[in-house]
Amino acid sequence: MNKVSIISIGDELLIGQTINTNAAYIGEKLTAIGYEVIRNFTVGDNREDILKTFSDAEAISDFIFITGGLGPTHDDITRSCILEYFQTDLVFDEQTFERIKKLFEKRNIPMPEINREQARVPRIAKVIPNDYGTAPGYDITKNGKRFFVMPGVPYEMRGMMENTILPDLKNYIQSKNIFYNQKILYTTGIPESALYTKLEDIRPLFDEVKVAFLPSQFGVKIRLSMRSNDEKFNLKKIKFLEEKIRERVGDYIYTDEDLPIEEVIGKILTERKLKLAVAESCTGGLICHRITNIPGSSNYFERGVVSYSNESKIEILGVNPETIKNFGAVSEQTAIEMARGVRKISKADIGISTTGIMGPTGATETKPIGLVFVGYSDSEREFAKQFNFADNRVRNKDKTSQVALEILWRALTGKI
Amino acid sequence: MNKVSIISIGDELLIGQTINTNAAYIGEKLTAIGYEVIRNFTVGDNREDILKTFSDAEAISDFIFITGGLGPTHDDITRSCILEYFQTDLVFDEQTFERIKKLFEKRNIPMPEINREQARVPRIAKVIPNDYGTAPGYDITKNGKRFFVMPGVPYEMRGMMENTILPDLKNYIQSKNIFYNQKILYTTGIPESALYTKLEDIRPLFDEVKVAFLPSQFGVKIRLSMRSNDEKFNLKKIKFLEEKIRERVGDYIYTDEDLPIEEVIGKILTERKLKLAVAESCTGGLICHRITNIPGSSNYFERGVVSYSNESKIEILGVNPETIKNFGAVSEQTAIEMARGVRKISKADIGISTTGIMGPTGATETKPIGLVFVGYSDSEREFAKQFNFADNRVRNKDKTSQVALEILWRALTGKI
Repeated sequence: MNKVSIISIGDELLIGQTINTNAAYIGEKLTAIGYEVIRNFTVGDNREDILKTFSDAEAISDFIFITGGLGPTHDDITRSCILEYFQTDLVFDEQTFERIKKLFEKRNIPMPEINREQARVPRIAKVIPNDYGTAPGYDITKNGKRFFVMPGVPYEMRGMMENTILPDLKNYIQSKNIFYNQKILYTTGIPESALYTKLEDIRPLFDEVKVAFLPSQFGVKIRLSMRSNDEKFNLKKIKFLEEKIRERVGDYIYTDEDLPIEEVIGKILTERKLKLAVAESCTGGLICHRITNIPGSSNYFERGVVSYSNESKIEILGVNPETIKNFGAVSEQTAIEMARGVRKISKADIGISTTGIMGPTGATETKPIGLVFVGYSDSEREFAKQFNFADNRVRNKDKTSQVALEILWRALTGKI
Repeated sequence: MNKVSIISIGDELLIGQTINTNAAYIGEKLTAIGYEVIRNFTVGDNREDILKTFSDAEAISDFIFITGGLGPTHDDITRSCILEYFQTDLVFDEQTFERIKKLFEKRNIPMPEINREQARVPRIAKVIPNDYGTAPGYDITKNGKRFFVMPGVPYEMRGMMENTILPDLKNYIQSKNIFYNQKILYTTGIPESALYTKLEDIRPLFDEVKVAFLPSQFGVKIRLSMRSNDEKFNLKKIKFLEEKIRERVGDYIYTDEDLPIEEVIGKILTERKLKLAVAESCTGGLICHRITNIPGSSNYFERGVVSYSNESKIEILGVNPETIKNFGAVSEQTAIEMARGVRKISKADIGISTTGIMGPTGATETKPIGLVFVGYSDSEREFAKQFNFADNRVRNKDKTSQVALEILWRALTGKI
């Protein structure tokens, strides 16, 4: 009744040129509203294999999600496979055509003829509008099985999921009296094993409420979930366990909404009318990038300086050349002067900074790859904290940006 | 004869907690030596589903790669599924036991009893040694089909592939005289449909050499591939088509190696000993972030300024307040002054800049969301280019960073 198979179509997936993030995204979103994903299939741009996979998936599941192969070119054969599988033909969809035409108008590009062809859709399909691209999606029900067909471009697929499919499927499962509830606690600054150890005494409670730990370089999510036909019971049990967890590791939980830490920080800064400035050396712009991903960040983010060279640290941020000479660019002292400098030149309320060695080169005898200092400065105090991340360059940048944002969050919430 | 299925086992994959990178890795490595990956299956920690998937995969392929579920705890059931599927039993493998024992000695940890159990392997399996963890892999041949069973931990699996499986399979396929060759052309600045239209007259050639178009917000990749028993023939055909494609769309191809455009730019800057500085408004640090993801970028990236506020544009970059007053912060004039300003204060050879409206708010009557200006300045010329991206905030940032890097690449290669 709620069993799902996900089919990803495309040679690029089979040959490993593209990593399949679509299946993970769909699996996560459907699991979160109570569906049970039982199989993923990946298949190439090959008619026979696609048709075989459609029927294999249909045989074991109630819902079949298909992505990929809806583009306008010759190697996109999903639409014609759908026609064959469901024994249907194409009809011209005026609304889709208008939508595609507008998309090109907005981009100021004449519409190529091949995109017109995308407005022809399988007769038995309900069209799923695409807010971000040309290819429409299809919603097809036959013999009690429901097929969703979407483009493989991740943001186009995500748009369809969020705007059309998920709201619909959420209503559907609730109408069947299945309630899946979950709460996710977002932690930062503590590894999975330490978290697990701190929760040792309440682990017997994990039998009733399902608990999963989901680690990444941006922190560990703790997911509490329950499925039953009694929503109140689910919520009560989850709430009880949540409180026990918060008693033990509450200091590491920065939100229980689906928000990155930069958005949590943004809300606090907005509320308190505080302005932020950032001086980045080793993170190279990543912290500013994360902060400015949040809509409305221009209200609190004043400026950032990516002071990669020593000269830029001295010239723009006013770091004392003697500090760099005596302690090095990667040092507590330089981090503090960078944070103070960017705060002062911008007249912002808070300045934060990073300086470190991201690798693969740049290590010295006393300063290994992964050595990082994060600086903090406001009108009342300033400090720097040291970290050691022995990882690759991109992950070292990720981890450094995360601890810098964590320090900012802790400073704003009186936790540091 | 060379058809491959890959089976990934684990609930964490189905619920989207872990992205399946193993299948992509295995697919890439096997494709590169001439095997044809025809299907990926992902299945949960469920006996019935696992056994069904084994037989589904066996029915369509010659080689079956299985990863995951070989750990020592209760939810790892792959080994017992193997026993059931092949109707075999366990034997104690002395060599594996010695290897596991040594692993714990090296880590200075006493060996837990559950790891001893891992030295018991299916009777019909040839053991694949694990250089990085406890679980051995299995190499099983039955009825002309060959199964490789490996742990799900990526670096353990990769060790087995590289040290044992790939050398063996490479010998095998060359003995069968099958060759697969491919070439990927990386384009930027042209949508898939326009690319396709420009290649219209040579499309009949796509029948012999397989051609695929892989679009993302960072450009479209064109993949040319061929499989035959004559490697020279493959290479000749691919080369011939590549030249035809280059004649038509060569201006958009920035590399045929697996490199992002920021790395291609980095190589050029390094070679010519040029220094770069970046002034970002609307991209908010993303361009600096992309540039500094490349190892060695500190040799050519001097500094970046994320001038979000008007004050920062004026104070750090020296943009004339009258320019902002008369033309607005989002204008050709401001973009040029930003690029010029960051170049001058840094004494870099080239300055680039971005200013625009990323949304969801900030649009005015004359300046819609997605309006962007990219500025360029070197000692001989300066200019700005206008773009309109009608997308969401994050994708507008991605696309703006990409056109800014494209302009830089074009300027460096005399294409603009």
